[in-house]
Amino acid sequence: MGRRSPVCLALVHYPVLNRQGKIIASAVTNLDLHDLGRLARTYDLPACYVVTPLEDQQAMAYRLLSHWETEVARELHPRRGEALARLKIVSAVDAACRDVRDVHGEEPVLWATTARETKGALSFREARRSLAEEPGPRLLLLGTGWGLAPPLLERCGAVLQTIEGIEGYNHLSVRCAAAILVDRLLGRGG
Amino acid sequence: MGRRSPVCLALVHYPVLNRQGKIIASAVTNLDLHDLGRLARTYDLPACYVVTPLEDQQAMAYRLLSHWETEVARELHPRRGEALARLKIVSAVDAACRDVRDVHGEEPVLWATTARETKGALSFREARRSLAEEPGPRLLLLGTGWGLAPPLLERCGAVLQTIEGIEGYNHLSVRCAAAILVDRLLGRGG
Repeated sequence: MGRRSPVCLALVHYPVLNRQGKIIASAVTNLDLHDLGRLARTYDLPACYVVTPLEDQQAMAYRLLSHWETEVARELHPRRGEALARLKIVSAVDAACRDVRDVHGEEPVLWATTARETKGALSFREARRSLAEEPGPRLLLLGTGWGLAPPLLERCGAVLQTIEGIEGYNHLSVRCAAAILVDRLLGRGG
Repeated sequence: MGRRSPVCLALVHYPVLNRQGKIIASAVTNLDLHDLGRLARTYDLPACYVVTPLEDQQAMAYRLLSHWETEVARELHPRRGEALARLKIVSAVDAACRDVRDVHGEEPVLWATTARETKGALSFREARRSLAEEPGPRLLLLGTGWGLAPPLLERCGAVLQTIEGIEGYNHLSVRCAAAILVDRLLGRGG
């Protein structure tokens, strides 16, 4: 684990907003699971939780994971299984928190991410310092659809600064946004 | 344009390697086009070239772009069209270079990206300094499949440092890798 506080991801499909601002459960996208598993493996994040209460969506995600345990898949992509092994399918953010506590001995602090500018948001510099100096796990919540629902945002210990686009354009995919966030928090780019 | 040298992306489907190390033309992935268009728009990159010599793949990419010009699509996702407008479909890297020259007045310097460690690779710090101090367009080549083919790599002015994974794991998706590269080169994270 090293000295750095553990950072886990949660790809949240519920509760999130739809384009009308209503709270919904969004559909799971296969490619998100591949991309976030690979991202978690690359940066050695202990887990990426796939949060959905919908049983058919959970079943789809399990089918994807079990495919990558077959012999054919292992031969074609020897290291994809390693990446997908970081994914954990759970029915709610609370279940992800319980799992983090079981693995790391403490409830995680929830860090929300959002494309909207938020007053008092945690800058990446502050977040990096917090990870270096304050122990305990963090769970980084990534919203699908039109973003995390406000009742979930309000439960978070902090909201991370947005990734600022040019001229107010701020519509990265959750895959690209997650990659940039994780790299800004944990990367060694230089 | 500002003072910064223009950086364009090229998502290369040919010539790239397959898992056996042979040179092939890979298939275009719809979601790559969405993600890279949104990335280009977010960081104000003038263009992302989609490089494929295969006519059916070009046709598929054009269909995707034209869908986002329909009225229904514009209403559902008002800003997706802005992102996809940054995509340009071309048959070869040379055609992308000619277009850069037409738009920016000079041939671009080719910067390759790779997941393999390369002797003499350009660090992100050096690349940022180069963009700030040395004028002229750069074209950042992103390989699909198992990466850019060696004959193309050899034509490049520089190879960018890899995004180093933990324990030698280095298998990000091209979507996530592109996001991290662009953010390291041009982002204002802090």
